[in-house]
Amino acid sequence: MRRTAFFISDGTGLTAEALGHALLAQFEKIEFERVTIPYIDSEEKALEMVKRINKAAETDGERPLVFDTIVDSHIREIIGRADGFMVDIFGTFLNPLEQELRSSSSYTVGKSHAINNEGSYERRINAVNFALDNDDGARTRHYNEADLILIGASRSGKTPTCLYLALQYGIKAANYPITEDDLADQRMPKALKPHKEKLFGLTIDPERLATIRNERRPNSRYSSIQQCMHEIEEIELMYRRERIPYLNTTAYSIEEISTRIMVATGLKRHR
Amino acid sequence: MRRTAFFISDGTGLTAEALGHALLAQFEKIEFERVTIPYIDSEEKALEMVKRINKAAETDGERPLVFDTIVDSHIREIIGRADGFMVDIFGTFLNPLEQELRSSSSYTVGKSHAINNEGSYERRINAVNFALDNDDGARTRHYNEADLILIGASRSGKTPTCLYLALQYGIKAANYPITEDDLADQRMPKALKPHKEKLFGLTIDPERLATIRNERRPNSRYSSIQQCMHEIEEIELMYRRERIPYLNTTAYSIEEISTRIMVATGLKRHR
Repeated sequence: MRRTAFFISDGTGLTAEALGHALLAQFEKIEFERVTIPYIDSEEKALEMVKRINKAAETDGERPLVFDTIVDSHIREIIGRADGFMVDIFGTFLNPLEQELRSSSSYTVGKSHAINNEGSYERRINAVNFALDNDDGARTRHYNEADLILIGASRSGKTPTCLYLALQYGIKAANYPITEDDLADQRMPKALKPHKEKLFGLTIDPERLATIRNERRPNSRYSSIQQCMHEIEEIELMYRRERIPYLNTTAYSIEEISTRIMVATGLKRHR
Repeated sequence: MRRTAFFISDGTGLTAEALGHALLAQFEKIEFERVTIPYIDSEEKALEMVKRINKAAETDGERPLVFDTIVDSHIREIIGRADGFMVDIFGTFLNPLEQELRSSSSYTVGKSHAINNEGSYERRINAVNFALDNDDGARTRHYNEADLILIGASRSGKTPTCLYLALQYGIKAANYPITEDDLADQRMPKALKPHKEKLFGLTIDPERLATIRNERRPNSRYSSIQQCMHEIEEIELMYRRERIPYLNTTAYSIEEISTRIMVATGLKRHR
């Protein structure tokens, strides 16, 4: 069975997409053809959209699901005429919220992912630059500005996590790879010592690490299961000895790793 | 007037947060204290949550708004006992969707941002690595693997956009800065020629560019308004001459820039 699901918005479509994916994830047996359509902000585009929904209904033999976050009720009403099953987010929740808040909605379009809060936006861009400048232990002299310093073996997920934390939450995260030299010393790398309270460790199953490393450098000592086992064992020992909070990333997505770090460290979201 | 808004989830909380922010953005006159609580996945944590909501109700003198994406109806029911105004996403939409799809929900927790599709997850990580390896014109020999090559003046927003496209959609985006040397030639940089169909140009208002550059290198020629005006004028000329599609990023967030590029190029989301 196959159904088309449209995520339609007057803005980027990110909210409609997030909500739609969350709901559709509950129906594992059904195969969905997912289509995101951003910037539906005029009557003309809405009428085009109706045609597209009706065409999908005809092709599939089933009416498509339509998740929408369109603020303008007139445009929403046009989309509603199509042969689709509407999951109408603003239509459902805005009115009850207006009553609860005893305030009327401003009905402004594309608010959610626009630059409506200059300060927080600049913060995110600065955080991305910070993550790039302080990636992979390249520089350690700006660690006093960091909100967080991620440490761990090479290829354990530090860089994507730092970038995600920066883009999503404006958190300045540096990262430092724990190398064999560091481990031979049996103590915390010198550059990290003054910033112990900012450290968070990542670890990963050695088998998974070996697979990831093999994609970059096949059949090297660096990618061997022996080497990965050795590094991870020593690194986890170090985390425990130094009482550094840490997380095994093997089963988690970047979003989950980031969220769990936020919970564990109590860092504030800047957004 | 001040209200607390909770975004509560059994997973990362990203969906509850996205939806809640989108709805609250419509009430500009009210100041919200926003609190995201992920991983509420047990009766015990739900009871803790009830206490926290009730405490906020007492402090604010108004019941908090509670946006939740909790799949388990028993846990949701516990949260519902608190003195909050529930915007219950799964409770509202799951049942109608079950009927429409003639299929029952699997009621599985934390699906939305988990690694439930290995292929697409790996793709995103690989795309992040691609963006980092092919940032700022550092290397051009992998451009044949790129889905997209962003070009533009230094500091016009190329790098954050490439990283966002990689993290969010698994798109392999390289970026190449158009420098004065390139402009002096009055033609497209040689490295870009064979990949013309992958090019997308960014431009930005010279005043904004000068502000951004001044943060990095204050009072330099690079940051002067004259220099920025000159570069932007020449770059836009080049875009038009070579018929490269382009976007002025001045008023847009990274999410909006990325979405508009996706629309303009017709690139597919890998997620």
